[in-house]
Amino acid sequence: MRNIRLTLQYEGTRYQGWQRQQSTDNTIQGKLEILLTRMCGEPIEIHGSGRTDAGVHALGQVANFHTNCEMSTDEMLEYINRYLPEDIAAVALSEAAPRFHSRLNACGKHYEYRVINSSVPHVFHRRYALEVPEQLNVTAMEQAAEYLCGEHDFKSFTSTKKGKKSTVRRIDKISIVREGDILTFSFKGSGFLHHMIRILMGTLLQVGKGELSPESVPAIIEACNREMAGPLVPAKGLTLVEVFF
Amino acid sequence: MRNIRLTLQYEGTRYQGWQRQQSTDNTIQGKLEILLTRMCGEPIEIHGSGRTDAGVHALGQVANFHTNCEMSTDEMLEYINRYLPEDIAAVALSEAAPRFHSRLNACGKHYEYRVINSSVPHVFHRRYALEVPEQLNVTAMEQAAEYLCGEHDFKSFTSTKKGKKSTVRRIDKISIVREGDILTFSFKGSGFLHHMIRILMGTLLQVGKGELSPESVPAIIEACNREMAGPLVPAKGLTLVEVFF
Repeated sequence: MRNIRLTLQYEGTRYQGWQRQQSTDNTIQGKLEILLTRMCGEPIEIHGSGRTDAGVHALGQVANFHTNCEMSTDEMLEYINRYLPEDIAAVALSEAAPRFHSRLNACGKHYEYRVINSSVPHVFHRRYALEVPEQLNVTAMEQAAEYLCGEHDFKSFTSTKKGKKSTVRRIDKISIVREGDILTFSFKGSGFLHHMIRILMGTLLQVGKGELSPESVPAIIEACNREMAGPLVPAKGLTLVEVFF
Repeated sequence: MRNIRLTLQYEGTRYQGWQRQQSTDNTIQGKLEILLTRMCGEPIEIHGSGRTDAGVHALGQVANFHTNCEMSTDEMLEYINRYLPEDIAAVALSEAAPRFHSRLNACGKHYEYRVINSSVPHVFHRRYALEVPEQLNVTAMEQAAEYLCGEHDFKSFTSTKKGKKSTVRRIDKISIVREGDILTFSFKGSGFLHHMIRILMGTLLQVGKGELSPESVPAIIEACNREMAGPLVPAKGLTLVEVFF
């Protein structure tokens, strides 16, 4: 049986996230599985490197599926892009090792969160960035980001309720780049909990606005209490850029 | 009477271009005039630096209008952005000299035309770039661009039929930059005729594909014959970046 690896781009605006749902097929996984099942002539289940939430975008989501289909990889790529809606695309497709698994083998991820730091709208970023009209102190946010890097229990930064799974993760790097009114926050790490980047962003933006000091971040981490961290910011600013294996 | 200068961004996808039409208000000028007339409480006519065609985008279109309205410029900017659709925005608004005229005073323009040079779709560029799957020879296109620069009669490169108006224009610079699969063609010049950049692009892409030699460009210019130049490429790749005064 072949194991096929896909790299996907999507604009999340119209979708209810990656994960297939019973009640609706308005998900990235759902759209892909319907298409792949038709292409392969057998029921296909696709594994993503992780779920992206409703409204979250991807430049380099990775997924894999098993099939007995005899099409070449080029034929598959062409078929998929011919029938996918225009806000989802397969940018690469290749034969993977039999045991390759997009989620289990992923060892790191790169996300970006984009902010329009202006009181006037930016037409071309409106679907991919959060509007923050207040002045933001980038130096203070960078200081706060320093405290977040490293291996920590990020329980304060996830919406997941009590569970048995570990909430320890490692953030390797957070960088903030300004280009005109556009601020791009880049997060690289071992993996991220549900809503983690959007809550980290809510917290960093509080620091940027002067509502929170960078020095209060270690106590927020230690508290392991969701209520201590900042708000969950909207999904539209978030993009999964790359998955590392 | 006050003279107000506006800098505008718009995504042209949904609109039938800049210029107001009798039969429809689905134009940028139309949308703005209805809004400004309501804001000012008097009939407002707005002058753009030039017409952009249906589907063409703008990052820095400049326009001006005269009014007796007593709102401050900050109040006007806020009002306008509150009521404009999300694909049109005013990014700056200021008091202009009484005789300032966006079209008559413009002494140059900067346009960009974007190409997705790949056989796979690029989701985030799909509204703003033309897909060209064929391999493109950038060096040959740069050679052809050299011949286009300078002051010439660009009659071969416009859709405008016989008229009394001069078709002489000056192109100061054409540059081509590749970032991954995305090629950005940048055009700076004194002004551009109707469809001129899209026909220049059609011609440059013929050169890039090897269908036309760079050396054949001077003869195309000299012919002053639309049929000698390349095809008109789609509007969606074109953006008015800046107007010079």
